[in-house]
Amino acid sequence: MEKGLFITFEGADGCGKSTQLALCKEYLEKMGKDVVTTIEPGAGEFGQKLREILLHYNGDVCSLSEFFLFLADRAQNVEYTIKPAIHQGKIVLCDRHTDSTVAYQGYGRGNDIDQIDTLNAIAVNGTIPDLTFLFDVDTEVAAQRVGDEKDRMEAAGKEFHKNVRYGYLELAKKYPKRIKVIDANLTIEEVFEQVKSVLNQYIKQYVNK
Amino acid sequence: MEKGLFITFEGADGCGKSTQLALCKEYLEKMGKDVVTTIEPGAGEFGQKLREILLHYNGDVCSLSEFFLFLADRAQNVEYTIKPAIHQGKIVLCDRHTDSTVAYQGYGRGNDIDQIDTLNAIAVNGTIPDLTFLFDVDTEVAAQRVGDEKDRMEAAGKEFHKNVRYGYLELAKKYPKRIKVIDANLTIEEVFEQVKSVLNQYIKQYVNK
Repeated sequence: MEKGLFITFEGADGCGKSTQLALCKEYLEKMGKDVVTTIEPGAGEFGQKLREILLHYNGDVCSLSEFFLFLADRAQNVEYTIKPAIHQGKIVLCDRHTDSTVAYQGYGRGNDIDQIDTLNAIAVNGTIPDLTFLFDVDTEVAAQRVGDEKDRMEAAGKEFHKNVRYGYLELAKKYPKRIKVIDANLTIEEVFEQVKSVLNQYIKQYVNK
Repeated sequence: MEKGLFITFEGADGCGKSTQLALCKEYLEKMGKDVVTTIEPGAGEFGQKLREILLHYNGDVCSLSEFFLFLADRAQNVEYTIKPAIHQGKIVLCDRHTDSTVAYQGYGRGNDIDQIDTLNAIAVNGTIPDLTFLFDVDTEVAAQRVGDEKDRMEAAGKEFHKNVRYGYLELAKKYPKRIKVIDANLTIEEVFEQVKSVLNQYIKQYVNK
């Protein structure tokens, strides 16, 4: 059996990660790989219920409570989607994962980062991404792309998003082997060229062993 | 300003804690006390959404995810209901709190109890009950009282509920000053006599300082 591969797609809203994830899926499937895509928050029916609360609930949600909801969603996604797919030798492409929580709830909302690391570790229970694409984009470019359709997260303000971007780049410094920074200010095609170049190395390295 | 009082009501399903909470509320209000009642999971609109998922979702929910949902509900309840009421000198009566998680998710479902203690502590952020009533009831008596109307939790089986009861009694041994064990096999009136006897001491001791 092939060894599976777990790849996460991270970055600010408007960075283009979901588009790149779809391109990756197509690219890998053309190679004959078995690909599973998932998203946090919001995989499956259970995740959808949580995503609905997290992104569209209008009342006040305290930051700690928001954080626990993300972890509930993550634990469920790891247990029922990510882990089984990896064990079956598939390639899992996940739209947002642990780094989002560190960047958004930690650097963005100012929660304790060591505490977030501890809780993330409990939630994923040993399942760590092999590779993470960080789509880094200027805050202004991202804001333009997102436009007027803002959900609760996206409406949090400019300063917040600058802190999120800074947080992501700090993570990339901390985990240079896992996190590959992609310049996402360019066109979709130019960004995907960078992604493919990294991806091809990993496919050789990790899959078909 | 009076010092508030935070009282939690714990015990197995069918132990009668919700009835006793209502009697306490009436009793304290007749004394002229300002009483706030709340419940976990499920206080407020946000809590209701989580309670709905926790008790009535039909799909599989992994134990870790279930646990994080309880913590999300708790963090929100502490922040927006319990803490403000205590600071205003009110008496808060809460139907289930941290001990439920230790008894059900820890002793009942076999999750790591030290980990639960750590996460409970993060969720309540320093707000600890002054007094906890543990309504202890024989597992058979509780099952008879609950009857056929079982939700997801209540349908978990006899062995599970025996472990939950054992867990509660272990907690009472660990925190004898905070947790008062009430024999809940008796009639509503007899149980409430025990509750009143404990309550009267605490009212003297804690309130009107």
